[in-house]
Amino acid sequence: MKISARNRLKGTIVEITKGATTAHVRIQIEGSVITASITNESVDELELAVGQEAYAVVKASDVMIATD
Amino acid sequence: MKISARNRLKGTIVEITKGATTAHVRIQIEGSVITASITNESVDELELAVGQEAYAVVKASDVMIATD
Amino acid sequence: MKISARNRLKGTIVEITKGATTAHVRIQIEGSVITASITNESVDELELAVGQEAYAVVKASDVMIATD
Amino acid sequence: MKISARNRLKGTIVEITKGATTAHVRIQIEGSVITASITNESVDELELAVGQEAYAVVKASDVMIATD
Amino acid sequence: MKISARNRLKGTIVEITKGATTAHVRIQIEGSVITASITNESVDELELAVGQEAYAVVKASDVMIATD
Amino acid sequence: MKISARNRLKGTIVEITKGATTAHVRIQIEGSVITASITNESVDELELAVGQEAYAVVKASDVMIATD
Repeated sequence: MKISARNRLKGTIVEITKGATTAHVRIQIEGSVITASITNESVDELELAVGQEAYAVVKASDVMIATD
Repeated sequence: MKISARNRLKGTIVEITKGATTAHVRIQIEGSVITASITNESVDELELAVGQEAYAVVKASDVMIATD
Repeated sequence: MKISARNRLKGTIVEITKGATTAHVRIQIEGSVITASITNESVDELELAVGQEAYAVVKASDVMIATD
Repeated sequence: MKISARNRLKGTIVEITKGATTAHVRIQIEGSVITASITNESVDELELAVGQEAYAVVKASDVMIATD
Repeated sequence: MKISARNRLKGTIVEITKGATTAHVRIQIEGSVITASITNESVDELELAVGQEAYAVVKASDVMIATD
Repeated sequence: MKISARNRLKGTIVEITKGATTAHVRIQIEGSVITASITNESVDELELAVGQEAYAVVKASDVMIATD
């Protein structure tokens, strides 16, 4: 499947925290850690696990720019 | 200002394309280029320019996870 | 690629309108037409065309519920 | 109330799962099930219940396009 | 129609700028001006006009918190 | 830090409800209360507390317009 979302960053899952309905998945991408808030069901369906390679995917309209 | 958005990736602006109302700003972050779709006014107000250091900022609930 | 976004609806592209930077893509999905606002570049990269089968993909946290 | 969000799909609520703060509501829309992640309070305020007719509402800028 | 989005702020439309596909609508709400980026079609369908009363509507998961 | 998000509304935090992973923060802004759904970690990192001044921040592409 190819998706229109412009931003895909490859990394390694370093932490998965499941809540009651919402999970936080952290991916180490080069020097940074990205946090994704997704459904518990997505974690199960994609069989996500710590140590696994995965992508953080973000639609361009959800990216903001900041300056110091 | 400190913001709740979990994800801030530092890089260098490599391209700014203004449309009629919406601009695309590209930031080189280590090996990747991130595209942000923001208003033309934000580009003006933050005085964004190619070559400048900037951050891509993304709320955790806007990050998806993908696997191969 | 498998993605965490919960919602994928299959249909047929019935209209593509490119703006200066932002395109509107309409997909007929059973009795409804879904409008997606994506970058012109995504339209080009995915080689989207009217008549083509495609999916509308939406993260669960971007879906609201309404009642009459 | 009329809202600018382009996409409204009518269906029947088939499942409501409340978490600590976030609920997942599933709506059967023709052949598909759409998952919405909303606040528990919205579920209470709209008095959502399984079997009820409801709409999934999505802003066009939150819709992505994917192809096989 | 009742919608799950938690945040509805009533004000007066003070500016509408249509782009090629995307419009910016500004609403004066007490001491602040809120900018909404919506489709040109929504502007037409809702027959939005400067001087009109309208609401800015935002899903709770799209609100961030910042501190000085 | 300056951020591209167009909308910043200043108010006072009136309620913080932490869930398993997701917190709801309510800010009183003039006559309205805004609800933000953010991560528990953001609440901790920004040391948010009831009675504190804070801003609700929203990207323009996440604002919808509604009319009566």
